[in-house]
Amino acid sequence: MTDLFAFGIGLSTTNPAGDVLETYFPCPLLRPGAALVPILDKLFTGTEGRVEPTRVADLVQALAGETHRASDLAALQALAAADRPLTAVRLETDGPIESTAAAYLKLHLLSHRLARPNSLNLDGIFAHLPTLAWTNQGPIEPDALPAAMAQARLAGRPLHVRSLDKFPQMVDYVVPSGVRIANAARVRLGAYVGEGTTVMHEGQINFNSGSIGPNMVEGRISQGVILGANTDLGGSASTMGTLSGGGQITISIGEHCLIGANAGTGIPLGDRCTIEAGLYITAGTRVTVMDADGAATVQVKARELAGQSDLLFIRHSTTGQIQCRTNRSAIELNDALHAHN
Amino acid sequence: MTDLFAFGIGLSTTNPAGDVLETYFPCPLLRPGAALVPILDKLFTGTEGRVEPTRVADLVQALAGETHRASDLAALQALAAADRPLTAVRLETDGPIESTAAAYLKLHLLSHRLARPNSLNLDGIFAHLPTLAWTNQGPIEPDALPAAMAQARLAGRPLHVRSLDKFPQMVDYVVPSGVRIANAARVRLGAYVGEGTTVMHEGQINFNSGSIGPNMVEGRISQGVILGANTDLGGSASTMGTLSGGGQITISIGEHCLIGANAGTGIPLGDRCTIEAGLYITAGTRVTVMDADGAATVQVKARELAGQSDLLFIRHSTTGQIQCRTNRSAIELNDALHAHN
Amino acid sequence: MTDLFAFGIGLSTTNPAGDVLETYFPCPLLRPGAALVPILDKLFTGTEGRVEPTRVADLVQALAGETHRASDLAALQALAAADRPLTAVRLETDGPIESTAAAYLKLHLLSHRLARPNSLNLDGIFAHLPTLAWTNQGPIEPDALPAAMAQARLAGRPLHVRSLDKFPQMVDYVVPSGVRIANAARVRLGAYVGEGTTVMHEGQINFNSGSIGPNMVEGRISQGVILGANTDLGGSASTMGTLSGGGQITISIGEHCLIGANAGTGIPLGDRCTIEAGLYITAGTRVTVMDADGAATVQVKARELAGQSDLLFIRHSTTGQIQCRTNRSAIELNDALHAHN
Repeated sequence: MTDLFAFGIGLSTTNPAGDVLETYFPCPLLRPGAALVPILDKLFTGTEGRVEPTRVADLVQALAGETHRASDLAALQALAAADRPLTAVRLETDGPIESTAAAYLKLHLLSHRLARPNSLNLDGIFAHLPTLAWTNQGPIEPDALPAAMAQARLAGRPLHVRSLDKFPQMVDYVVPSGVRIANAARVRLGAYVGEGTTVMHEGQINFNSGSIGPNMVEGRISQGVILGANTDLGGSASTMGTLSGGGQITISIGEHCLIGANAGTGIPLGDRCTIEAGLYITAGTRVTVMDADGAATVQVKARELAGQSDLLFIRHSTTGQIQCRTNRSAIELNDALHAHN
Repeated sequence: MTDLFAFGIGLSTTNPAGDVLETYFPCPLLRPGAALVPILDKLFTGTEGRVEPTRVADLVQALAGETHRASDLAALQALAAADRPLTAVRLETDGPIESTAAAYLKLHLLSHRLARPNSLNLDGIFAHLPTLAWTNQGPIEPDALPAAMAQARLAGRPLHVRSLDKFPQMVDYVVPSGVRIANAARVRLGAYVGEGTTVMHEGQINFNSGSIGPNMVEGRISQGVILGANTDLGGSASTMGTLSGGGQITISIGEHCLIGANAGTGIPLGDRCTIEAGLYITAGTRVTVMDADGAATVQVKARELAGQSDLLFIRHSTTGQIQCRTNRSAIELNDALHAHN
Repeated sequence: MTDLFAFGIGLSTTNPAGDVLETYFPCPLLRPGAALVPILDKLFTGTEGRVEPTRVADLVQALAGETHRASDLAALQALAAADRPLTAVRLETDGPIESTAAAYLKLHLLSHRLARPNSLNLDGIFAHLPTLAWTNQGPIEPDALPAAMAQARLAGRPLHVRSLDKFPQMVDYVVPSGVRIANAARVRLGAYVGEGTTVMHEGQINFNSGSIGPNMVEGRISQGVILGANTDLGGSASTMGTLSGGGQITISIGEHCLIGANAGTGIPLGDRCTIEAGLYITAGTRVTVMDADGAATVQVKARELAGQSDLLFIRHSTTGQIQCRTNRSAIELNDALHAHN
């Protein structure tokens, strides 16, 4: 009973056929405590269904003693005034995604920073997220868009389509505390934007990826990638979505790293690593490893250095050689990989 | 009679002086068939002029048996309810652009995928597209903007200027089927976005350029550039607008190519080509061509390799040398160019 | 008396507690002439305060003979119809910023092209700019956002958050003459966008930075950086915010320069300089300087070449060496730096 995985009461947009297009959950719950579960049981026991708006008050009251932000509770409370039924989603376990509302609930959990990237089961998410036109008059299905566009022009209130995508932008659903996002169009719902993160105009964060915070993000955080605290991603810097080190591994970048402007990485990095501006390291890049005295030691593929700390990657400006320097006496290579070299 | 080039009935925004600022054509026609021309003749025979909204019904009926999308016809039908005259543009031939409405008609033809990039005469387009402020209250001429801005603030409905440009964004006019565009601000009207194309947040498509589809576009497609099917353009990848191979040639990239993240090309490419992440090839780049055994053969300027298939471009990570590898036994150089080398 | 530094009458948004969140100044004044000061004295003599809207007419009349744009005066005139007091800011000298309205006034001075980047005292600006959600319903404080979001959804007019930032975008406040900005989200208030500048979709201009004009801006102009006339910044090109040449110096780029696509610079450049596409020069990059005959002369750190004209930076495509070529007989190194080399 107490191991309920997730619960949310939200407001949905439906199409004329009654299909849920998207759902907004002001105050989603992850693994609600034992004291809360009986209250949720009274509210809704199915997997997904309708709840009368007036029932929201009970939930707000029950959550008042918890750690939820007052602003999120106020938003939940506001839903009590809805003129249509709300959508309840209750997930007993973290299984594959089976509905649009459930997909939105999981994306909210990530953006509310209740769950870290790569910690949720997102199987099936693409199939359950309809591609929508995100407009100034709300989400519209693409087939209905041309006529809506014509009618809006005739009515003198032109329709503006901001995006034609499966994922909406995060801050129209979730506004995490302590962050700045210069261009909200570039951060998808499902992004994890840690406290103290600034996302500049060129920064971009996909769903199921993000920054622990504090971070300066001026480059692209691909799906599945996460930046450790105090790591900066320079302008237009690139992080590859998934990458192999003999298989598929997720890219993570540790703490106190700097990925320079226009640089990129296809391997995960430990702490205190730097890639100089303009240099792209892929898993297959042959890197000359320098010792603490600046002498070349071995050449390895970059994937063998995956996850290590205290590395500085440069392309030598006289010889064009890609080098990895360190302040440590020795770099531990990835044994499994090196054996095959 | 049957070789009429293009025809459109649209809704225009005009300024107080009556000048057309922009025109929306829900269902533009390219080279209408012989059966249709007599109906168009009855509707409008000049080059550009006014048509009563009620006349639209005749056109919708005539088009019903054609291949137009039902959603586009519904939008055209909606214009019948306009409270002002519509704009008709009829172009007997594909001559230089001579009016704003005609410029918009040609841009619509491209974005409706009726004409491919570089197939239309766009001479004069810049002169006939006024620079406008594209706002949440419709297009506004820049000189009128400050006062409109002040008045809107006083009225409590703040004016928001999305763009100050000659070209509006495509999806406020045309929404092609089967595409996703994460940030609509980055795709101009006049882009050709092929079925199955996904344009991510960092993707950008200029007018008179595009992707045949399916494609993943995370980089910049410059004016005149076109991507073949199944070709991916990595994050921040750059395609140069026009390029010489002894003259001005248009850049096209063939099928099944990959331009890596933060890479770029100043030469056209054939099929199955790859440029590694972070490498920029310009026409004048001196490239060392490797044979199938990995041995260096000749050095040539990249423009001599223009348009060839099965090429892999890298900058060697130990020597800094830019190399072109291939899976073929020999690379055919551009004879004309090579003769001058 | 005649050395008054700046003056503005604007319209503010305040929060329920009465704090100014932002102020719009349609026609800010920098160092108003001696004839104007007595009129301003009658209007307002404090540092910041309220002015009745009807008083605006006097100011408009006084400014009519000055060089202000008719469109800016029309906007100022429109404020006379306000139903609430206006905000006056009067700065006797260019001291540190001490209020939100004063911060906005200085940002307006830059974007109205009355003051060049790095010419104003902006100390304290971050502390006096609240982080706001910039929405389609005006600026909202982040804590108030979730409830506002829920209520707007219920009311059927969804709230859209464009940005969560201290700086709004420029063109919602100031629209300079003779410029095009493809994506207004990427140019902050406080940018200086010179006449004849085109900022393409990938261009970005921070506050207190900009272009003298004419310029083509397709890359990122960081805070403090300024581009000279006829200089082009290629797609995704990067300019480092501040850089040392033995200390902290501001990056400026002279006239007739070209920073190639995906390139970058961490040093200031003189006139007629080129950095090839894809090459990033940092202050510490070791550069091999070639003479007019193409022979290598010395190797220096790039910072020693800071500010010089007629330089061409490339990374040799055969040797991987970063070279600086020139069309001059000799390059003058930075003596002070070179002495320490």
